[in-house]
Amino acid sequence: MGRMRKVLIIGVGAGDPEHVTVQAINAMNAVDVFFVLDKDSAATELTAARRALVSRYVTRAGSRTVVIADPPRDRAAADYAGAVKDWRDERTRLLAAAIERELGPDGVGGILAWGDPALYDGTIRILQDLVPFEVIPGISSVQILTARHRVTLNRVAGAVLITTGRRLAAGWPDGADDVVVMLDASLSCRRYRSEPIDIYWGAYLGTPDEILISGRLDDVIDEIESVRAAARERKGWIMDTYLLRRLES
Amino acid sequence: MGRMRKVLIIGVGAGDPEHVTVQAINAMNAVDVFFVLDKDSAATELTAARRALVSRYVTRAGSRTVVIADPPRDRAAADYAGAVKDWRDERTRLLAAAIERELGPDGVGGILAWGDPALYDGTIRILQDLVPFEVIPGISSVQILTARHRVTLNRVAGAVLITTGRRLAAGWPDGADDVVVMLDASLSCRRYRSEPIDIYWGAYLGTPDEILISGRLDDVIDEIESVRAAARERKGWIMDTYLLRRLES
Repeated sequence: MGRMRKVLIIGVGAGDPEHVTVQAINAMNAVDVFFVLDKDSAATELTAARRALVSRYVTRAGSRTVVIADPPRDRAAADYAGAVKDWRDERTRLLAAAIERELGPDGVGGILAWGDPALYDGTIRILQDLVPFEVIPGISSVQILTARHRVTLNRVAGAVLITTGRRLAAGWPDGADDVVVMLDASLSCRRYRSEPIDIYWGAYLGTPDEILISGRLDDVIDEIESVRAAARERKGWIMDTYLLRRLES
Repeated sequence: MGRMRKVLIIGVGAGDPEHVTVQAINAMNAVDVFFVLDKDSAATELTAARRALVSRYVTRAGSRTVVIADPPRDRAAADYAGAVKDWRDERTRLLAAAIERELGPDGVGGILAWGDPALYDGTIRILQDLVPFEVIPGISSVQILTARHRVTLNRVAGAVLITTGRRLAAGWPDGADDVVVMLDASLSCRRYRSEPIDIYWGAYLGTPDEILISGRLDDVIDEIESVRAAARERKGWIMDTYLLRRLES
């Protein structure tokens, strides 16, 4: 059967090499060229972590890595969705050029995605309409959060909303009692501290720097804020997520 | 360091042995006694799939499996949450007795959970207050659904709601445009067929029987219904989930 040029988007978990699946390992060993799109602030550590994964799991000789510098991104833009789109367009252009240049007509490209490629990751959207691709699911930081806190995501027969800090800052989501918040630059949950809500918070999930704090929101939000600020100061970046569980009042 | 009695709740994905993580494999190899709580209708196939996982990945000799028959469950009960609670209480009692009887004071028990233990799985709740336990995250059917359809769960900067068929049948969730539906006995999405919604549906995700259908809800809901009925007839059980994506009208 003839091969044709394709790219594997490989979810590799949030940092712990043990969270990689057997399918992801096999996929990594099918890759000829790894394409790396690097995030700005956390770049050095993420690059090292990615390299560690490849060196631990890739046993096949002859694959290589092509690094594509991330275009700058206007994070202060008022039009958030518009700024993300511009940034994605430029990223797409750079990646398309690299695939065209580096991957043979029957080559297999690979892009390692932190967490799960379906959840707050742009790789699937970037590859759409660009090149044939397959997606390998990976353990997301949300799953590591609940596993480490040993809690369920949903309550019995209940629903759970996964949303962003920006949306939570705009108001508590209608009808939701169990809410996972991602991409929150400033602990938007603080404004709900007077309400009967439990929080399960985690930073650098799945890495040796992992931090976990949980409790009644009002009791622990100050601790989370100071621990978070200190960690960000120490490492230069923070990656955190949390589950809010509204209790019956 | 002294060991103490504990149970590992090990997420093993939705059926494909390749979706098992390295962490889950290592955990399986630390287990002395696997406790199996078997679901009724799909029991034979699930038992065989579980056995296949153990025989593929457990290299350590000397572990054994204890099967605990699932108590009967009143699925027709008007008080759904109450019926689930009764069933869970009885399940807890049976499991507690088995752990007490079968696991030594420093033994490691293991329970394999399909999908991710945090998502619509009762094992964490059952073990709470029963015995010290750890949770190993696993690839959920939701992640396999999005990977196979090669779509993202959320849209850019958007939120996603994970809910049940029962809840969707009661009304479209407020403010949600991207909705994952699980545990839906009767395709509750049908009532929204006249609205501008795309559906990404999958059954037996991660198994050789996997079926995928996607498209505009109104265009494909009849096909999904007939394919689903035929599959359920053929296999005696169905396990399916889907993502609904409301389009701008």
